[in-house]
Amino acid sequence: MAGKRIVAVGGSDAGISAALRARELDPDSEVTVVVADSYPNFSICGIPYYVSGEVGHWSDLAHRTLADLEATGMQVRTDTLATGIDVAGKQLAVRGTDGRTEGLPYDALIVGTGAVSARPPIQGLAGPDALGPADGVHLLHSMGDTFEVMQTLTERRPETAVVIGAGYIGLEMAEALTTRGIQVTQIEALPEVLPTVDPELGTLVHAELTHHGVEVLTRTTVSAVTREPAGNRLQVQATGPDGEILTRDADLVLVVVGVRPDTELAAAAGARLGVKGAIDVDEYMRTSLPDVYAAGDCVITQHRLLGKTWLPLGTTAHKQGRVAGENALGGSRRFQGSLGTQVVKVFDLVAARTGLRQHEAEAAGRGWAPATTASHPDDHKAYYPGATTISIRVTGDADSGLLLGAQLVGRRSAEVAKRVDTYATALFHSMAVDDVSDLDLSYTPPLGSPWDAVQTASQAWVQERRLGSQRRALIGP
Amino acid sequence: MAGKRIVAVGGSDAGISAALRARELDPDSEVTVVVADSYPNFSICGIPYYVSGEVGHWSDLAHRTLADLEATGMQVRTDTLATGIDVAGKQLAVRGTDGRTEGLPYDALIVGTGAVSARPPIQGLAGPDALGPADGVHLLHSMGDTFEVMQTLTERRPETAVVIGAGYIGLEMAEALTTRGIQVTQIEALPEVLPTVDPELGTLVHAELTHHGVEVLTRTTVSAVTREPAGNRLQVQATGPDGEILTRDADLVLVVVGVRPDTELAAAAGARLGVKGAIDVDEYMRTSLPDVYAAGDCVITQHRLLGKTWLPLGTTAHKQGRVAGENALGGSRRFQGSLGTQVVKVFDLVAARTGLRQHEAEAAGRGWAPATTASHPDDHKAYYPGATTISIRVTGDADSGLLLGAQLVGRRSAEVAKRVDTYATALFHSMAVDDVSDLDLSYTPPLGSPWDAVQTASQAWVQERRLGSQRRALIGP
Repeated sequence: MAGKRIVAVGGSDAGISAALRARELDPDSEVTVVVADSYPNFSICGIPYYVSGEVGHWSDLAHRTLADLEATGMQVRTDTLATGIDVAGKQLAVRGTDGRTEGLPYDALIVGTGAVSARPPIQGLAGPDALGPADGVHLLHSMGDTFEVMQTLTERRPETAVVIGAGYIGLEMAEALTTRGIQVTQIEALPEVLPTVDPELGTLVHAELTHHGVEVLTRTTVSAVTREPAGNRLQVQATGPDGEILTRDADLVLVVVGVRPDTELAAAAGARLGVKGAIDVDEYMRTSLPDVYAAGDCVITQHRLLGKTWLPLGTTAHKQGRVAGENALGGSRRFQGSLGTQVVKVFDLVAARTGLRQHEAEAAGRGWAPATTASHPDDHKAYYPGATTISIRVTGDADSGLLLGAQLVGRRSAEVAKRVDTYATALFHSMAVDDVSDLDLSYTPPLGSPWDAVQTASQAWVQERRLGSQRRALIGP
Repeated sequence: MAGKRIVAVGGSDAGISAALRARELDPDSEVTVVVADSYPNFSICGIPYYVSGEVGHWSDLAHRTLADLEATGMQVRTDTLATGIDVAGKQLAVRGTDGRTEGLPYDALIVGTGAVSARPPIQGLAGPDALGPADGVHLLHSMGDTFEVMQTLTERRPETAVVIGAGYIGLEMAEALTTRGIQVTQIEALPEVLPTVDPELGTLVHAELTHHGVEVLTRTTVSAVTREPAGNRLQVQATGPDGEILTRDADLVLVVVGVRPDTELAAAAGARLGVKGAIDVDEYMRTSLPDVYAAGDCVITQHRLLGKTWLPLGTTAHKQGRVAGENALGGSRRFQGSLGTQVVKVFDLVAARTGLRQHEAEAAGRGWAPATTASHPDDHKAYYPGATTISIRVTGDADSGLLLGAQLVGRRSAEVAKRVDTYATALFHSMAVDDVSDLDLSYTPPLGSPWDAVQTASQAWVQERRLGSQRRALIGP
């Protein structure tokens, strides 16, 4: 019996995960992955570490090589553009480098077209005369972008750089360029860097950047990037917190202000779009089109606490792709939802979050009474050398006691990334903050405390928000 | 209205946690903690790091100082021995250093008498002529023991030591003495060191010990410890794996082969004993005696997968003490059970476990079909510097897919201690191994992978144990 013909569009996390899962589950399936560029299954998240010089060769960034992928029995068609979906005829039109168009018949199609860099409304970055890689002005999202940045680094040997944006990739690139010996100015329009965490924690990241020589300008909006007529240098013009005009000269300008879902292919075929214009999918990763699934940065995300949202993350893309690959074969697996768990390393500091911050929980319209408590437990027993404090902010519903989210910032050695995973697992199971103390977590003095920092921070929340009601229940008013 | 009179016996984790919780919940409660020695609220787990020299002063090992404790409003009576419980009269008899006995009336009593070192049947360690601290032969469980070891280290300046036992404390002490420049021989009767994990992982710890210069003798049973008549040196005689007689000279012998529950006080009052002779308690930490609670190393432990067992751990003692303290005031909190989560650092290696190993699950009599799969994922993306593999053994029920346990060994940098916490939290919620992949865990290349090692190892188990049935469900036989 011939297996199903599965075609996946997109060679990044979602498409490859779908293809791998389909091949794993059905050795008879005919799986083809259509990849627009030459770099299937690359770790986009690793780009900053290639730019910094910490990764020796760009090919090391591949999660798997082309040969690894083909060894699973899938076909990978690189440098092939998906140009249209014939939904009724169940064919994907593709165009190769030779310009020829052909139709790939499918039983199920999986769209994993991902996201593209957002281009902010800054003078000099839009229009026919927009500055670009040849001028030392870069967006950064794909391997193609990466090679252009590396060319600028090699040919222009920049001494100064401006990074516009201070989200995850912006922070990682500020570190990467600093590691290369470049003087970096980081410009963020919002009041604090890393705006995905509370400013009380963002300020710690800010200090870490400054400590490593990065000039950080917050509440500062870039209005123009220009190139000196007589030379190679770029000038960045911005408006500071008090309305003052700031200018910075730079040899390299990096624009990393976020991404938007790449939905062109699916939208043209009539797929329903949802939040933020992302492709609308159900929990089985089905689009509104028959036999067309979608996954990854191009689709809306089911959030366990918020419902439908858009939250592009590689971890989510892997999970959604895996679900789509199984269901494309006729399975009925559900994507179990995101909690927005994220972590970033900035120099020697690690910042992580999962679930909701207070204002996000307030805006959710679930009737919660969200409250946040800050605490600063040691990562391990203070008597053992090397102990550092972790800044933790726990958010819970003061009425029900339900855990809603946690944010943590600590040193690299403080195992912050895995501690947020404990909160994420607790959130997955809708635990009360108080019940986090019931978890049987590990302890040895060099690595923790009898109540882990995760529990100490939860107990601080309970003491501040629930001790009164616990007392009244026990000993009366 | 006067508050309840709560008396806790024992100044270690359970007794102090109970007292702290009672004071926190009811500011009117009269809380007295009776402590046999002068060291309330000391971190027994920290002793190896004081012996090694990494902790500067013994007083640093206190979780809280006496002043900290008294500031919460509790009374701490050090150097006071609890000699008997008058259950009907609700009085605890105590004897101070002056030899006078008095009765402390209570509304609720909490027994936290802990454990005492087991003394193995080795010639020279028992009987009226048993060797002891003055000879350089030591047990190690209390602060008193610790001071005696330190005296031996100072006065005898040992160059060689034999550590009998290779459990947690034995391994930590082998490291501690090696750190002090002492040549250590570690002797373990069982086939591999750290017998609380599978030998496939214990062997990694064995290699780490050897790598740091520790001589490790497994399958070797010590039969006698003798002191040279003419000098200070000790001789340890043992039987090796093939029945051969081995001898080692040593300046210091440390006997760390485990502990047994200290139940004398409760048993004399008529408390029912249970597993391994530990005090039988229910999930509210009530003993069989009215108004007498017990918690910590002296009581049986409710295990979430095994039911009643005995598993003395500091983390458990803290939790049980807290529950007892609340219920002593009239509360109805339940101890939610242990999973036996444990971690130990041995030089640069970290070994951790939670839940059940295969033979433990088989012996549980729950009808499981336990199966274990080994895998070796990287701690973070291999392209980022410093990646190391973690050896993970996942045990699950091949019939139902239920997660039963996980064991991990990796380098210090691999965040093994917090990764076991993710498994522990998953186990707490009775997750299937396959569903671990649904958890929204954090990812950044320097600290993890899009599927965290915890998930990769779970997927390896699913591939080996469940992929066949997943395939059949999807595409037929």
